[in-house]
Amino acid sequence: MNIGNRIGYQVLSNDEHRFQTFNPRLNSLNKGFIYAASEAEIELALELAELSFHEYNHISGCEKSKFFIEIVRLIECHETELFDLYCSESGLEKERAIVELTRTKNQILNFAKLIGTDEWRYCSTEMADLNRTPTKPKLVKGLFPLGPVVVFGASNFPFAYSTIGGDSISALAAGCPVIVKSHPFHAQTGDLMAKIVLEAASNSGMPEGIFSNLNSDDYSLAEKLVLDSRIKAIGFTGSINGGKAIMNLAQKRQVPIPVFAEMGSSNPVIVFPSIFEISVGKWVSNLALSITNSGGQFCTKPGLIFILNNEKSEDFIQQLKSEVLSKDFQCLLHPSILRSYEKQLAERGTIITTFEKKGEKLANFANPAIGICNSDVFLENEILADEVFGPFSLIVKCDSLLELIDCINFLKGQLTGTILSDLTEEVVSSNLLEQLRSKVGRMIFNGVPTGVEVVQSMQHGGPFPSSSDGQSTAVGLDAIKRFVRPLCFQNYPEELLPDFLK
Amino acid sequence: MNIGNRIGYQVLSNDEHRFQTFNPRLNSLNKGFIYAASEAEIELALELAELSFHEYNHISGCEKSKFFIEIVRLIECHETELFDLYCSESGLEKERAIVELTRTKNQILNFAKLIGTDEWRYCSTEMADLNRTPTKPKLVKGLFPLGPVVVFGASNFPFAYSTIGGDSISALAAGCPVIVKSHPFHAQTGDLMAKIVLEAASNSGMPEGIFSNLNSDDYSLAEKLVLDSRIKAIGFTGSINGGKAIMNLAQKRQVPIPVFAEMGSSNPVIVFPSIFEISVGKWVSNLALSITNSGGQFCTKPGLIFILNNEKSEDFIQQLKSEVLSKDFQCLLHPSILRSYEKQLAERGTIITTFEKKGEKLANFANPAIGICNSDVFLENEILADEVFGPFSLIVKCDSLLELIDCINFLKGQLTGTILSDLTEEVVSSNLLEQLRSKVGRMIFNGVPTGVEVVQSMQHGGPFPSSSDGQSTAVGLDAIKRFVRPLCFQNYPEELLPDFLK
Repeated sequence: MNIGNRIGYQVLSNDEHRFQTFNPRLNSLNKGFIYAASEAEIELALELAELSFHEYNHISGCEKSKFFIEIVRLIECHETELFDLYCSESGLEKERAIVELTRTKNQILNFAKLIGTDEWRYCSTEMADLNRTPTKPKLVKGLFPLGPVVVFGASNFPFAYSTIGGDSISALAAGCPVIVKSHPFHAQTGDLMAKIVLEAASNSGMPEGIFSNLNSDDYSLAEKLVLDSRIKAIGFTGSINGGKAIMNLAQKRQVPIPVFAEMGSSNPVIVFPSIFEISVGKWVSNLALSITNSGGQFCTKPGLIFILNNEKSEDFIQQLKSEVLSKDFQCLLHPSILRSYEKQLAERGTIITTFEKKGEKLANFANPAIGICNSDVFLENEILADEVFGPFSLIVKCDSLLELIDCINFLKGQLTGTILSDLTEEVVSSNLLEQLRSKVGRMIFNGVPTGVEVVQSMQHGGPFPSSSDGQSTAVGLDAIKRFVRPLCFQNYPEELLPDFLK
Repeated sequence: MNIGNRIGYQVLSNDEHRFQTFNPRLNSLNKGFIYAASEAEIELALELAELSFHEYNHISGCEKSKFFIEIVRLIECHETELFDLYCSESGLEKERAIVELTRTKNQILNFAKLIGTDEWRYCSTEMADLNRTPTKPKLVKGLFPLGPVVVFGASNFPFAYSTIGGDSISALAAGCPVIVKSHPFHAQTGDLMAKIVLEAASNSGMPEGIFSNLNSDDYSLAEKLVLDSRIKAIGFTGSINGGKAIMNLAQKRQVPIPVFAEMGSSNPVIVFPSIFEISVGKWVSNLALSITNSGGQFCTKPGLIFILNNEKSEDFIQQLKSEVLSKDFQCLLHPSILRSYEKQLAERGTIITTFEKKGEKLANFANPAIGICNSDVFLENEILADEVFGPFSLIVKCDSLLELIDCINFLKGQLTGTILSDLTEEVVSSNLLEQLRSKVGRMIFNGVPTGVEVVQSMQHGGPFPSSSDGQSTAVGLDAIKRFVRPLCFQNYPEELLPDFLK
C-alpha cells in the first residue's frame, strides 16, 4: 500500500522521495511507502486552503457541526483499521488506542456542539447614543477566523493531537482551513484519518481545500509551510527545540503569525510529609503508574518528584523506586525515541544515582528508571530539570521547605504542578503554593498530572517553555480562541452585518 | 525644575545624562532637566516591581479599585498643571488635552469598576464525578496576572496611551506591577502624572514598586527593560520600526514574552459613488477634519481614501483637496516629527501629485496636504500604502471595483477600514466587505476612523503591522486580558483555592 498526500479531494504522490513507518514492537519497517509532499503539492495545498477559506467561512456553524459529526461517524466505521495502524506505528497498546480515540471523538463532538450555533462568536454590543455630542455610534464585536492554519502532528498522540486532534478540530471549528503536517512516525494512521476527514467533508458538501494532509520525514516541509504568507497560525505539539525553531521561523516572516506550541514539561510533584504517614501505598502506586504508563511518553508525565526529608521519607522513596522498577519494560514510539531516552538516562547517570529495571528486553523497549538526588545537586545542574521523554522520573530530596522553594524557583515553565498531602495545614503553612502557581498552567491536588480532562475548565498550557503562549490552552473549548480574532463593526447597517451579529 | 526617575516611592537622578523637552509652539526647549535613568535605578525599579508583585497580587480587587479612584481624584486636583505641561510638551491644543484627560480618567474608572469585584477573573467550574471510572476531578479555572509589565509611553497621546493610559491601567487592573518608559517628548507631563499615580498608591496603601516611571531619550533603557527576565509582558504604542525592534528583542530572550504593540495604520476609507450624489459636503467636511485634527497625528487618521471614479468623483476630490488645504497649519509634536512628515511628503512628491497648503507658517507647523494618484501607480509603489504621520491623506482613484479590490488586497494590516455610502445596495453588490474585513480590526460605516470609543465592544488592534497581536485589543475592558493567563485548579480543597475561586 502506497500513501500519497491528501490535498483537498485529491491524492498525489509525485515526489521521488518516499519513506516507511516503523513498528517498534516488531522492530521492523511497516509495509507500504509514504510519498513526501513535492513542492508542487505543497503549493497546491496552500492554494486550496486559501481559496477555500472564503467559502468555508460562509458555511453556517450548523453545517460545519454536521461535518464534524460525520467525521465521528466515519471514524466509527474504521475503528479496527485505525487501531491496527495506530498500534503498528506507535508501539502503544490497543487499550491506549481505544481511550485516545474515544477522547478524540469527544473533542470533535464537543466542538460540533459549540459551533452548532454561532453564539460563541458573539462578544458584545453597545447601542448608539444620538443625544451625545459627538453622537456615539453603535458598536458590535464578534470573533472571526484567522485564515489557513498549519497543524503539526504529535509523535505521542497519533489520534488526539494529530491529524484531526485538538488543534485541527479547534481550527476547523473556528472557521480556519487546516493543513496537517503529518507526523512521519505514524503517517499511515494519519493518512487513514485524513481520508476519513475528507470523506466526511465531501459528504457534507465542504469546499475542497479546507483540509489537506501532507507527508514528510525531514524539516523542509515544516519550513515551507510556516514561512508561507497564506498561513495565518500554527498549532504544534512536540519538543522544545522543534517548537522554538517554529516560533523563530514564524517571527522572521514579513508578517509574523501566532504559534501555539505545546512543548516540554517535567510536571513537578511535591510530596508532603503527611503522605509518608498515611497513604504511602496509594501514591507509590499512582505515581509509578503515571510515570511509566504508555512508556512515560505523556506531556504531563510526572518527571520531577520533590520530597521533604524526614525519618519516613526514605521508605517512601525506596517503595516508589521499587514500584517503578517493577513495571514492565516499555515499548517506545520509535528507535530514535529510545536512543534519546537512553542518552538522557546516561547523562543523568554521570551526575546522580539512577536505578533502572534490569533484565532481558526486546528491541525498542525502555527500562523504567528512577533517579535520586539531593536538592543541592539539582540546583547545580540545569539539565536535571529538563523533561526526559520516557518512563523515568527524578526524585529530589529536600532537607527543608526553603530548599524545596529554591527548587521550585529554579524550574522553568511547566504544564502542571502537583501537591500530594494528607494535611491541608502543612500545605498552607508551607507558603509554596504561589511559587508553584507562577510556574504552571494547572495545579493538581492529590492527583497525578497524566489524564487531561477535555472540559471547559481545563488549562493545557503553561509558561514558556512548556507552551509558546501560556495565555492559551490546547485542550478544551477555549482552544478555539487561538484561531480567531475580534472584529468591531461601528455604525453598521443590519443588512451588512454578518448574520451572527444581527 | 529637575525631573528624576520615580522608582517606587523614591525619586532618583544619579545619572550624568540629562535632557530637556521641547515646546514646538514656542520653538524652544522647556525649562528643567530630565535625568535619564541610571543602570542602578533601572535595576532598582525592576527589583521593586518583582518584589511588589506578590503583595499587590494579594490586595483585593476592591482595594485596587479604591487606588484607581484615588488616581482620578488626584488628577482632578492637578488638571491645570497637567494641561500646561501637556500643551508645552506636545504642541497640542488645550481643547484636545481636555478631551484626552477625560478619556484617560474614564478608562481608569472603567477598570476601577471592573475590578471592584473579582468576577472578571473567574472562568468556569466542572464538578467532580466520583461515579465515573476513573473518577472525574473537580476543575476550576481563573485568570492570574503575568507579572511586571513594561509600558512604553506614546508620543501622540501623553495622557491616554502613556504614563497611566490604557496599557498601564489595564496591566495594574490585571494585577501586574508597571514600569513606564516615559516618552522623552513629554517627560515632564509623564513625571507629574507618575507623581499623581504614586501619591494615590501611597494614600491607598499599595506596596512600593507596583509603579515606576523611568526617563530616557535613547534606546538603551528600552532594550534593558525588554530583555530583563523579571519583565513578563510589554505594552507599546509607537512606530512600526520601534514595535518590530521590541518584538524581536522579546523573542530573543531565553523566555520570550508577549509584546502588545500598536504600531502604524493608514486606515483606508472607501467612498462609494452614491456619496458624490447625496452627501458630498458632509463627508468632505468630516474627512478633512479627521485628516488634519490634532495635526493628523492619530493612529486612526484616514490616510488612504479610495474613490470609485465616475463623472462626479472628480468634483468630490477637488472639494476634499480644497477643504484639507483650507485647514490651519498644524503644530506637530516635535521638530523630528515635522522633519519625518516633510520627508514622507517629499518622497511621495516624486511619485505622485501632492498638494500642500501654501503660505507663511511658524516653525514646527506642518502643511495640511493631499496626494492624488491612480490605482495603478498605488499598486506599483508599496511606500504609498504606508502611514504618513501628519495632516496628509492620499486619494487613490479606481476606475472599477476590481481595481479597488486589488488595492485593498495590496494593503497590509490596519486598525480600521471605513465605508462611506448612501446606498447599502452598492456596498452589498461590491463584494469588497470581506476583503476589507480581512485587513482590519474595526469596520466603520459612514463615520470617520478617528474617535475611538472606550467601550467593551471596541476593537483597537488589527492584523500585523497595525498591531503585533491582532487577537488582542488596546482599548476597552478586554485590554486587561493581555496581561493575565488562565490557571486551572484540579481537585483543590476549598481552603487552598484563591478566594475568588471559592
